[in-house]
Amino acid sequence: MKNTFGTSLAVSLFGESHGPWIGAVLDGLAPGIPVDESFIASQLTLRRPAGSISTARREADAFRIVSGVFEGRTTGAPLAILIPNADTRSKDYQRGPARPGHADYTAWVKYHGFEDYRGGGHFSGRITAALVAAGAVVLGALKAKGILLATHIARCAGIDDASFGENLSAELEKLNTLPFAVLDEVRGVLMRKAIEAAAAQGDSVGGILETAVLGLPAGVGEPWFDTVEGTLSHALFSIPAVKGVEFGSGFALADMPGSTANDPLRIRDGQPVTVTNHNGGINGGITNGMPLLFRCAVKPTPSIALEQQTVNPLTGEETLLRVAGRHDPAIIHRARVVVDSVTALTLADLLVLRYGTDWLAE
Amino acid sequence: MKNTFGTSLAVSLFGESHGPWIGAVLDGLAPGIPVDESFIASQLTLRRPAGSISTARREADAFRIVSGVFEGRTTGAPLAILIPNADTRSKDYQRGPARPGHADYTAWVKYHGFEDYRGGGHFSGRITAALVAAGAVVLGALKAKGILLATHIARCAGIDDASFGENLSAELEKLNTLPFAVLDEVRGVLMRKAIEAAAAQGDSVGGILETAVLGLPAGVGEPWFDTVEGTLSHALFSIPAVKGVEFGSGFALADMPGSTANDPLRIRDGQPVTVTNHNGGINGGITNGMPLLFRCAVKPTPSIALEQQTVNPLTGEETLLRVAGRHDPAIIHRARVVVDSVTALTLADLLVLRYGTDWLAE
Amino acid sequence: MKNTFGTSLAVSLFGESHGPWIGAVLDGLAPGIPVDESFIASQLTLRRPAGSISTARREADAFRIVSGVFEGRTTGAPLAILIPNADTRSKDYQRGPARPGHADYTAWVKYHGFEDYRGGGHFSGRITAALVAAGAVVLGALKAKGILLATHIARCAGIDDASFGENLSAELEKLNTLPFAVLDEVRGVLMRKAIEAAAAQGDSVGGILETAVLGLPAGVGEPWFDTVEGTLSHALFSIPAVKGVEFGSGFALADMPGSTANDPLRIRDGQPVTVTNHNGGINGGITNGMPLLFRCAVKPTPSIALEQQTVNPLTGEETLLRVAGRHDPAIIHRARVVVDSVTALTLADLLVLRYGTDWLAE
Amino acid sequence: MKNTFGTSLAVSLFGESHGPWIGAVLDGLAPGIPVDESFIASQLTLRRPAGSISTARREADAFRIVSGVFEGRTTGAPLAILIPNADTRSKDYQRGPARPGHADYTAWVKYHGFEDYRGGGHFSGRITAALVAAGAVVLGALKAKGILLATHIARCAGIDDASFGENLSAELEKLNTLPFAVLDEVRGVLMRKAIEAAAAQGDSVGGILETAVLGLPAGVGEPWFDTVEGTLSHALFSIPAVKGVEFGSGFALADMPGSTANDPLRIRDGQPVTVTNHNGGINGGITNGMPLLFRCAVKPTPSIALEQQTVNPLTGEETLLRVAGRHDPAIIHRARVVVDSVTALTLADLLVLRYGTDWLAE
Repeated sequence: MKNTFGTSLAVSLFGESHGPWIGAVLDGLAPGIPVDESFIASQLTLRRPAGSISTARREADAFRIVSGVFEGRTTGAPLAILIPNADTRSKDYQRGPARPGHADYTAWVKYHGFEDYRGGGHFSGRITAALVAAGAVVLGALKAKGILLATHIARCAGIDDASFGENLSAELEKLNTLPFAVLDEVRGVLMRKAIEAAAAQGDSVGGILETAVLGLPAGVGEPWFDTVEGTLSHALFSIPAVKGVEFGSGFALADMPGSTANDPLRIRDGQPVTVTNHNGGINGGITNGMPLLFRCAVKPTPSIALEQQTVNPLTGEETLLRVAGRHDPAIIHRARVVVDSVTALTLADLLVLRYGTDWLAE
Repeated sequence: MKNTFGTSLAVSLFGESHGPWIGAVLDGLAPGIPVDESFIASQLTLRRPAGSISTARREADAFRIVSGVFEGRTTGAPLAILIPNADTRSKDYQRGPARPGHADYTAWVKYHGFEDYRGGGHFSGRITAALVAAGAVVLGALKAKGILLATHIARCAGIDDASFGENLSAELEKLNTLPFAVLDEVRGVLMRKAIEAAAAQGDSVGGILETAVLGLPAGVGEPWFDTVEGTLSHALFSIPAVKGVEFGSGFALADMPGSTANDPLRIRDGQPVTVTNHNGGINGGITNGMPLLFRCAVKPTPSIALEQQTVNPLTGEETLLRVAGRHDPAIIHRARVVVDSVTALTLADLLVLRYGTDWLAE
Repeated sequence: MKNTFGTSLAVSLFGESHGPWIGAVLDGLAPGIPVDESFIASQLTLRRPAGSISTARREADAFRIVSGVFEGRTTGAPLAILIPNADTRSKDYQRGPARPGHADYTAWVKYHGFEDYRGGGHFSGRITAALVAAGAVVLGALKAKGILLATHIARCAGIDDASFGENLSAELEKLNTLPFAVLDEVRGVLMRKAIEAAAAQGDSVGGILETAVLGLPAGVGEPWFDTVEGTLSHALFSIPAVKGVEFGSGFALADMPGSTANDPLRIRDGQPVTVTNHNGGINGGITNGMPLLFRCAVKPTPSIALEQQTVNPLTGEETLLRVAGRHDPAIIHRARVVVDSVTALTLADLLVLRYGTDWLAE
Repeated sequence: MKNTFGTSLAVSLFGESHGPWIGAVLDGLAPGIPVDESFIASQLTLRRPAGSISTARREADAFRIVSGVFEGRTTGAPLAILIPNADTRSKDYQRGPARPGHADYTAWVKYHGFEDYRGGGHFSGRITAALVAAGAVVLGALKAKGILLATHIARCAGIDDASFGENLSAELEKLNTLPFAVLDEVRGVLMRKAIEAAAAQGDSVGGILETAVLGLPAGVGEPWFDTVEGTLSHALFSIPAVKGVEFGSGFALADMPGSTANDPLRIRDGQPVTVTNHNGGINGGITNGMPLLFRCAVKPTPSIALEQQTVNPLTGEETLLRVAGRHDPAIIHRARVVVDSVTALTLADLLVLRYGTDWLAE
């Protein structure tokens, strides 16, 4: 249903880039979950632009939880979080030519010109701040249940990060503390240089985010439609710039023979496990107890300083456009915490459906 | 909601590989849509195994529409289609070791051993026959509205098909008539030889399906969650073996600079169009009027004749398994019509949401 | 969503009065629930017309479960039940004048004349047979969980039945065995005589059904929208002829002072209970552990033999109509088992949402 | 889904009686609907307590629309309205004995003691202010489409108002301007005196609200589950104190013969109409173009000054309680605008489903 996602545990989003507040409502949270405002704040900091590789727009993200929390814990009633838009320079934005790669033209067609066009309005990546705040509540609850997840920049500007290694749990813990989440610091330095180089040319870069989830029980997900892949990808494609999602070995599976792709099973510590994990922890749409692995393709930021060919929907005329305002030469390092939030929200919904409304607090 | 997909126009699936009937229910169809049973039959034929590159299982697919159609047209009430399982050899299947790459183990965990394990039960690709029958009704209605879609085998066993060309409409029309849907016949021959070679080795192959949709109005989809990418991928990942979905240039966008990835706009015939289509006809989750383009990674068929290492969930012991019964060395050529059906159902749902319940028949 | 009801446990209906089959699909059932086909058959018998107070139409209701059950228990996959329409005399029905009190005219407007008009098509009370079959599966599972429910004809043709007494559990058990469900047999005889008298005049009668549910845990339901009252009434109003639903003392509460309507609380056997039960076991939309009580107003059967003034939608002309075919002078005694089914399905959905998908089989 | 209602056009609620803000989010509004803040304010005034028959709690209801409106019109993005809780005297409320007739005990059980108990928390009638604000936006849009609705106090404290008369349109227009909505002013005076008399005794009264909707097109609603009666009642039972809903002649239909209850049809001005309207404008769950009529039973306000017998859930002990704080001796006159809002939201959802997302602004 449009701006709401989830069935047993649902998140709703509202707000525009240049409105007074953006917000998220979480409905279906178990009562009694501790809400750690400092963790929410730190997640928002990870999403916030910083340094030479991000837009100059700065938001304090002075969020406020206005319902659903009482004496530090969830009440079971909807939890609403508001975040003020402190630093909005509306004069930077006028209805004008459609920015290529943005939703300006599609919003114009869909909303017949009534959309709030300032800064992308409701389509703005700014809205993901609300998603991150909501996700932080659920990430904390999942962690208390032994479910740990993190995302790294597997590729950026053509540079690959290292792959996940043997000690996945420690790697995930570490990634969650890094502002620029890579497994190999040296590659991270190269990526940042490449981002700065693109920025210097008035251009932007994209990449690939890779996520791992540990501790998910086997048996979660449905055989048709509400598969783990289907529900996760549904949510992940909401993240602006995500244009591809693959699970396990994903597109590389297309070139494997079945004898390789079929992860053989064996018993370890009394539990069936797979020897390889080409299927990314999912068979038949349902978790098999192995690490859940997926990757998101993130396109380069569409706001670039270079002049571009476009049209003005209002006049119906072709024009050249040099996008004014503040730009991110890359958003992949900021998007990573959005992926984590969306993943947490989606998995929690599947888990609550399976184990009941109180499970997340038990 | 589990085995149902769609909001304004929803499809529900039921049935097992070795039960008496499988079926689909379509709810939300406009009244007055002509239902062409011969087209349904021909779509089922495209899904059905045939020749040396498919399983020996043969189903007449003698479907029966038992409700929702009166005097050759939809009534507006739910349309239920039943397909009998004529050729079920249950003695080929006994509860035994979990077949690697299949849902046997995850079904065991999720359903606590109560699942119908014969032939994969409700997880069987057999259920896609019901999906194809339901999709055929909607494909016909979309075509009458000027919306044309088709899928080709863009890659199989490491062999690439040709790319879509200038005359996309004619290519789509032609693809829809081919049992083995490739743009370049010679590549198709090579692919089939590679499939036969894999079969000869007791192995299987996968590939990539690429779909194009023409004639979609701009302005369809939602900015958050119910994006075109999100809703389509949600449904596509239900197709057994699909492990990746990408839109437009997809994962290749990760390596492009923004100046390339941002499809510039111009006016052609009075309408804004993009010069390139790296975004696959979608900006901000919403159609922009360009062809909708996406690709699905299809893993190799998990049922192979080669001996595999696995476990028996019942006994908790490791074992070797040689899967008996009938196998497809590839399902990609059969899956293509399932992708078309799922695409038609998903897009029709978004269109009905936008234009109202009668639109599909107007 | 139209012909589907429920979130965690959903039921879908399809079929028409004169189609080959009607059916129901139950999605979200826990795996491992025993399915007692003889209980389904006996529930269908209670719904089936019988004797001088019912239509002459007779259906064997030779239902068939075609999926979701394996070796006598639910598998966790969708359970589909088909019921053939054996005794359809289509020649009795021609598109003609709209029968007053029926959906003939509204179906004509909504479906633009494409509806299957024979015998009311998809609007026919016949479809409730599928609902009863589906409900029977869930009623059995609820009973195994200690949740007992039954309905009596609290009023018919102006004659009141006795009220529920002290030994509610025994009364409910007994009601479930009666073809004509009244607490006071003498009143039942009077009701049946009144029905026969109406039939003799070519007319029909209505009444009030009262339902009690024992053993529901406290804490089920939601404060806004998905209240127990809201979800139950949503489903109950689908039963053809139900035009009013009230909980506890219902409309009589409108005339009570707060000091009477507020059921005082006390402790009995260590548990909070209410001294009275004017709120019908629900406060703030949530069960309080007392018996759930509600009443449905059932209008008189619209099919009557008397001549009626009406219009022919096809010609747009006024006309007189004498409805041919078979009529029920009352359906309240048959509707009671439909109320039970709808109640079981709705409560089970709320319970599964709260306690998880496996709860119903635990 | 819990605190959200609607499919094509959905409303979500959040907030607690003593939190900083309450709010509503409307998702699915067509772009371009004029938003009249003064009308929202006037609707909130009608809901607000006033004079000797209401609680002394006064709220300025200084609502703020924080998203979804741009330059005075809806944008098509979610519209979020926040209302501050200005006058909260939390010291009046301590967790203590469960107030009879309230949700205190059920909230305790459902939320395991984590609920915000102050002033009823999320169960408080205060939340209906957000519902009224959201409803006002939709009421305005419906009126622009020629759909007019209003509610009167059909009965209060045992005193009946006059019935709707011939000039229904003028009556509805007038009712919408009245703080105490009755058709017969003299009866209104008597009702208010009865309310004051109850207040003087520390008690409270209830009543019946009757709603009429004019201008609804025929053909809206679904045959099963999403009937007009089912969807409306689902929403109406969320209104605190509503314990019964009946359509048309409702429970009185139980005593009518079919020959009376079946509203005969005739042609007037070229359109089929019914001579009587016992079915309240709905046949088979679908509007027939006649006025939609329904009645809600409103129980007496549970907060009364009289001493009551109850239990303390925390200690598990019986106790006597005299509820401190501010009380309404009746809420029926304030609930009427909540009924209008809920009705508008529910009908708009059905209309948007049928006619498409843009319809409400066309």
